[in-house]
Amino acid sequence: MKTYGWGILGPGRIAHRFLNDLPRCEQAGLAAVASRDLERARSFAGQYGFRKAYGSYGELLQDPDVAIVYVATPHPQHAELVQQALEAKKAVLCEKPVAVNGRQARQMVASAAENRQFFMEAMWTRFFPVNRQVKALITSGALGAVTLIEVDFGFGNWPHGPVDHPESRIYAPQLAGGSLLDVGVYCVSYATWMKGERPTAIKALSTRVSTGVDGMTAALFQYRDGAMAVLRSSVIQATRLTATIYCEKATVEVPDFYHPEQAIVRSRSGDVEDQVIRALYSANGATGFDFDARELMRCLDEGLLESPLMTWQQSVVVMDLLDEIRQDIGLIFPMD
Amino acid sequence: MKTYGWGILGPGRIAHRFLNDLPRCEQAGLAAVASRDLERARSFAGQYGFRKAYGSYGELLQDPDVAIVYVATPHPQHAELVQQALEAKKAVLCEKPVAVNGRQARQMVASAAENRQFFMEAMWTRFFPVNRQVKALITSGALGAVTLIEVDFGFGNWPHGPVDHPESRIYAPQLAGGSLLDVGVYCVSYATWMKGERPTAIKALSTRVSTGVDGMTAALFQYRDGAMAVLRSSVIQATRLTATIYCEKATVEVPDFYHPEQAIVRSRSGDVEDQVIRALYSANGATGFDFDARELMRCLDEGLLESPLMTWQQSVVVMDLLDEIRQDIGLIFPMD
Repeated sequence: MKTYGWGILGPGRIAHRFLNDLPRCEQAGLAAVASRDLERARSFAGQYGFRKAYGSYGELLQDPDVAIVYVATPHPQHAELVQQALEAKKAVLCEKPVAVNGRQARQMVASAAENRQFFMEAMWTRFFPVNRQVKALITSGALGAVTLIEVDFGFGNWPHGPVDHPESRIYAPQLAGGSLLDVGVYCVSYATWMKGERPTAIKALSTRVSTGVDGMTAALFQYRDGAMAVLRSSVIQATRLTATIYCEKATVEVPDFYHPEQAIVRSRSGDVEDQVIRALYSANGATGFDFDARELMRCLDEGLLESPLMTWQQSVVVMDLLDEIRQDIGLIFPMD
Repeated sequence: MKTYGWGILGPGRIAHRFLNDLPRCEQAGLAAVASRDLERARSFAGQYGFRKAYGSYGELLQDPDVAIVYVATPHPQHAELVQQALEAKKAVLCEKPVAVNGRQARQMVASAAENRQFFMEAMWTRFFPVNRQVKALITSGALGAVTLIEVDFGFGNWPHGPVDHPESRIYAPQLAGGSLLDVGVYCVSYATWMKGERPTAIKALSTRVSTGVDGMTAALFQYRDGAMAVLRSSVIQATRLTATIYCEKATVEVPDFYHPEQAIVRSRSGDVEDQVIRALYSANGATGFDFDARELMRCLDEGLLESPLMTWQQSVVVMDLLDEIRQDIGLIFPMD
């Protein structure tokens, strides 16, 4: 079994969560960690057993032991770091949102194609067994056409939001903060995946926090066949965290859709069987970040440049849709 | 105890449901029924024990035994019939939607004021004990500010809708058909009641059926303080039929909000007690239409011209909001 050396760019909160799971993947080697702050890189490396720590991203990208680069920096840095990693001929797993806007996402994908390197958005939600089974069930046509999708992802405490001070990363315009890119990306990605196409009309409203980014956004999608989606994201109000996919013959409810343990299929027509789709996280104590890491290494084993579960084009479409929502609510970031 | 003679205009489906409950109200006398089809009026009168049946609405309005007129015709006829009833010095209970648009609603209210007669929209939802308790709890401030309201009312079978033929009343443009006026009115009225104010911004999308009216509409409301509402109505897709009112300290879920038996209050902050608010329908076999009939007669006993639970102005505001939604989705009725 081939193993792959992983290099981590940006040893922050999300990288810590990812590193709970990565060592449980048999094919994963822990090669190197890089931060602009060398001490931070060293501390992270020591905690998880990485062999090397670097005080700059460029050093890690030159390291021949690194086969796969995991980009876990704040999202405004994704585009540039991904491009550098691809040019250094590394496979890349990039945290969501893959970029700040559709333009950046297109550049990243073009670079992956040009450099003939594997590239994937770490939209971990898509790789959960429950979600893959729900997607397969819907794609099978057994439930009839998708007619209405509701997805909401909200946390925080009104009116103060996720934290009591506006200095939070999530509130910072220069870090492309706000609910839409932080958690709305899950809703848009999930709906787009389940419906399998992009909407033909979009309308949205948002509530701004003091820094000007969106604290709460509600978006409506309409599809070619008349189906609709209602999406909500919030960093100032905790919500149900549930995806509901209405189909002609049954309704599928997925609590905690972004990392689900079950989905409930309820028939409306009587000609579909009610069922509960269950799948625990990995049995070995992983929390679900192993699913995308495993998928990436499976793709490398097979010589693929993208995963069929999270294609380049799908990442671009989601960023385009986020752009359209932002256009409708008038939210512009400094780096747009 | 004073009794009041009731006269029914339009002995159709909704009047049949109303008449299951009206005789259970001690103050209600069954005076007369009128239909343009005299046989239909006679049949209805015989079934429920009304003393008189008329083949025209005008005859009923001249009947001195009729103190209260219940208008249960299709909604495009409401404005004219209500006005005639008020001019004949009758108290009026008018089925929802009270009118086709805000203009008509204003005329009706002006007529009620001019004729100094009681007038109320039969928005039965507001009079259910559970809903009154929920409203009181929210108004008390114990749960903090309302931050987000979700209400959905959908029935029907995609893509055929409530029936398999486009001749249905619900699909007819000349009867102001579509989901919005048929069931969306519940969502708009409920959200407006719970929030206690009108939104400052509205956006909506709709899916049209073959006749041109809306089969499904999703609307977003935004309020002055940043709170939002997400409302959905459908006559082509069955949905949860639930209202959820997110407040700063707790979330209130009201299944079957339009005629609820319970509401679940879940604390998020810990400083509110979780509770289930329960109240059965009337113990005497009524299905909930008795609540508004009783309220009306209570108001007459007290000499009121409108009920504080469903004021004239509130009916006008809801019709105005439905107009704004229709403007955003481009839905115009022949009688607008």
